[in-house]
Amino acid sequence: MAKVKKTPRPRAETPKGFRDYFGAEVTERAEMLSRIAEVYHAWGFDALESSAVETVEALGKFLPDVDRPNEGVFAWQEDEDADWLALRYDLTAPLARVYAQHRNDLPTPYRRYAMGPVWRNEKPGPGRFRQFYQCDADTVGAATVAADAEVCAMLATALEAVGIPRGDYVVRINNRKVLNGVLEAMGLEDEGMRAAVLRTIDKFDKVGEAGVRELLGKGRRDASGAYIDGVGLSAAQADPVLAFLTARSDTTAATLARLRDAVGGSVVGAEGVSELEDMAALLEAQGFGPDRIVIDPSVVRGLGYYTGPVFEAELTFEITDEDGRPRQFGSVAGGGRYDDLVRRFTGQEMPATGVSIGVDRLLAALRAKGRVTGEALGPVVVTVMDRDRMADYQQMVAELRAAGIRAEAYLGSPKNFGNQMKYADRRGSPVAVIEGTEEKARGVVQIKDLILGARIAESASLEEWKDRPSQYEVPRGDLVSKVREILDRPG
Amino acid sequence: MAKVKKTPRPRAETPKGFRDYFGAEVTERAEMLSRIAEVYHAWGFDALESSAVETVEALGKFLPDVDRPNEGVFAWQEDEDADWLALRYDLTAPLARVYAQHRNDLPTPYRRYAMGPVWRNEKPGPGRFRQFYQCDADTVGAATVAADAEVCAMLATALEAVGIPRGDYVVRINNRKVLNGVLEAMGLEDEGMRAAVLRTIDKFDKVGEAGVRELLGKGRRDASGAYIDGVGLSAAQADPVLAFLTARSDTTAATLARLRDAVGGSVVGAEGVSELEDMAALLEAQGFGPDRIVIDPSVVRGLGYYTGPVFEAELTFEITDEDGRPRQFGSVAGGGRYDDLVRRFTGQEMPATGVSIGVDRLLAALRAKGRVTGEALGPVVVTVMDRDRMADYQQMVAELRAAGIRAEAYLGSPKNFGNQMKYADRRGSPVAVIEGTEEKARGVVQIKDLILGARIAESASLEEWKDRPSQYEVPRGDLVSKVREILDRPG
Repeated sequence: MAKVKKTPRPRAETPKGFRDYFGAEVTERAEMLSRIAEVYHAWGFDALESSAVETVEALGKFLPDVDRPNEGVFAWQEDEDADWLALRYDLTAPLARVYAQHRNDLPTPYRRYAMGPVWRNEKPGPGRFRQFYQCDADTVGAATVAADAEVCAMLATALEAVGIPRGDYVVRINNRKVLNGVLEAMGLEDEGMRAAVLRTIDKFDKVGEAGVRELLGKGRRDASGAYIDGVGLSAAQADPVLAFLTARSDTTAATLARLRDAVGGSVVGAEGVSELEDMAALLEAQGFGPDRIVIDPSVVRGLGYYTGPVFEAELTFEITDEDGRPRQFGSVAGGGRYDDLVRRFTGQEMPATGVSIGVDRLLAALRAKGRVTGEALGPVVVTVMDRDRMADYQQMVAELRAAGIRAEAYLGSPKNFGNQMKYADRRGSPVAVIEGTEEKARGVVQIKDLILGARIAESASLEEWKDRPSQYEVPRGDLVSKVREILDRPG
Repeated sequence: MAKVKKTPRPRAETPKGFRDYFGAEVTERAEMLSRIAEVYHAWGFDALESSAVETVEALGKFLPDVDRPNEGVFAWQEDEDADWLALRYDLTAPLARVYAQHRNDLPTPYRRYAMGPVWRNEKPGPGRFRQFYQCDADTVGAATVAADAEVCAMLATALEAVGIPRGDYVVRINNRKVLNGVLEAMGLEDEGMRAAVLRTIDKFDKVGEAGVRELLGKGRRDASGAYIDGVGLSAAQADPVLAFLTARSDTTAATLARLRDAVGGSVVGAEGVSELEDMAALLEAQGFGPDRIVIDPSVVRGLGYYTGPVFEAELTFEITDEDGRPRQFGSVAGGGRYDDLVRRFTGQEMPATGVSIGVDRLLAALRAKGRVTGEALGPVVVTVMDRDRMADYQQMVAELRAAGIRAEAYLGSPKNFGNQMKYADRRGSPVAVIEGTEEKARGVVQIKDLILGARIAESASLEEWKDRPSQYEVPRGDLVSKVREILDRPG
């Protein structure tokens, strides 16, 4: 037998750009997703969990026409004749594949929701990971804008269900066809020019109205001093584009009137305005007025990708950013109508519309609102004073659990009592229970209020400290009721 | 610009060995996992979600010492200098990595639970997929068998929490050290011989006592007629191994006495028996008697992998297999103590024990028990009789949802009413609501009880059919109460 080479110790590290999630990070996200799922389900959407692994061919964007088709995705090939496989990079591309594959067994329209991790083979950065969660709802096979309106209303309902109060968010709606109409009305037929205009208005969020006007015209010197060439439109040509971007008015009717002006005689433009009008009417009728869902043509994110209505949910409350400056929280969800995705597989038209919630951003928003804490309360820890009486300690734990109180016995080496208290501290335990030989003989237990104890330790005088008001001796029979009393103590 | 080559349509298929999960398949699994998580959490275990992607180095088993280190796992390398990455194949190897990486920030003992998909690059077969769920709980850093006993008791509690009643399952416990003691008592020092004995007793489930006796001796002719060479022990040498495997008796004390005999004077064997005795005592004290958790040395699965206690949860009720024959449901969870996994990274001893629940098998068991149906009730479908009155239909849907009733308006093309009813049927909708122009004028709605309707359609006479007892006309204001009445109808 060949001699086994001694392998060096492996490094205990996640791959670059990946991370682990602990305790409350996991349970708070699960709780939030479960509340969103409840809303989606109540609205008639069915759960779907597609496989994490897809063929590169099915994912689309990344066709195997180059040596390494894993640009942007994690991809591999089993052997030279095998299909390239990849981890899904979103939940929409798999939906198109699922619908095309199972369309004979699925209802049409097919309303589905999906939640789970997706993977991106991109340069990781601060707060940017290569595995993250998405939470999507889509309707495949419904051409009517009633489907788009439904998704927007459901999104607003889901935000409220997870704890974003009305007034703290707004869903803004735009429509790609209106922009197409504007370009048509301008007589801008050239595809390259149209694409350049699209790229430019995508910068509206960053450079504002004046910036977009410059960039549509001759060009603009940016903050770094570099000169950015413009699209080359005349001021008159740029006017309708700016009119479109800034069409939002006090009332829906006024906004729609301005958009109707901006698209001039364009048929597709009129269709876009009419779609927005229909959506607004349907939403109003369901009680989703402009305080919650509003037509706002300055929503330009995704206009290039989507084919009709586009929507974005924004949180409107202020947070303090890393530099201590107040700023609006910003976008937590986006979506729109994409009518071409299923056709890739089937060759047949198949309308689709949907929304994706940015799970991590929404969770951060809930933390900012104090709706979730990011910190879990640890279990009550029953310390082990006498190694041979483990059954006694387990009995206490069983009584506490039976009363609905999270509890455990210490299972490390019981020799050093200080280690047990350090353990309870690290777990965030609210209460420690102590029953030594002497307590056992007297039929009592010591109960330490660790949260109050920590507070006293921070601020107490020696006298207060000596009184040990955060530790109680109670009869063994009162264990559960005393622990319950401490846990229920306000503040 | 180069001419874009027209790409052929991609195939709409999951990769071989992968599948999608729809509706109730997703929600029932999520519900089951959430109940298990509640138990784990109440017992002091913290959630952990590690990344799905690990370095091949950290995963261990599959070291990059060959050209393609992806034997058994899905692995890839970004470029020649980069680390090989792989999808995790279980939740235990990542736990060892996580604990080694974060051990300075984690409490010790570290109790954690984890649930999620794992991936195996194996030949798929019927019911065997390359992505499947695991649900694990482990304690790292506790040397005491109190930790093993806790995991067994928690497993029993979790099974009851998801709907497996007491009496329908049993957790069976064994101990690797007892077997080591038996081999030591036999004077079997040779590693190769020991491994051969281990492999042989692993077949106990399949070939039974007589079969193992033959295989430990000269050999055995199997069902196909092929002759399998034996290990070559004498009958006297085989006796203690058989005594070990069949040591289970009516009482725990009797079983332990037989095991004590079987290990003779072996120190490690005595230690193993004493561990089993301690576990049984702790479990009895917590009310987990032999009706739920029993010492049974015939549990041999995993004896090769684990280093101390080994446990397996078996469901004891009968199901009917594919061939129509009754058989016991069998194993749904397994685990044990593995004290060497963290040491790979740190070089330091770190005891660990835990259990993994076979999520898909447990779900199948719940289906067999009728605890979950595998079929979701669809939403109430409000049909669209008049395209221009979508807001009216949405209003009905909103009223139903506000009453906690899952509901939706039909969003496909409303032209063909038959398609709407087909859709409701495919969704498994219990109720369809109809309000045409004529009903609107009279202030009423038609409510179809689709479940009762389907039942009548199967068995009704023409007369009964004509009476249409499954369709009701009610005032518009009674919509919600009538739907509620139908949904609450027993049977």
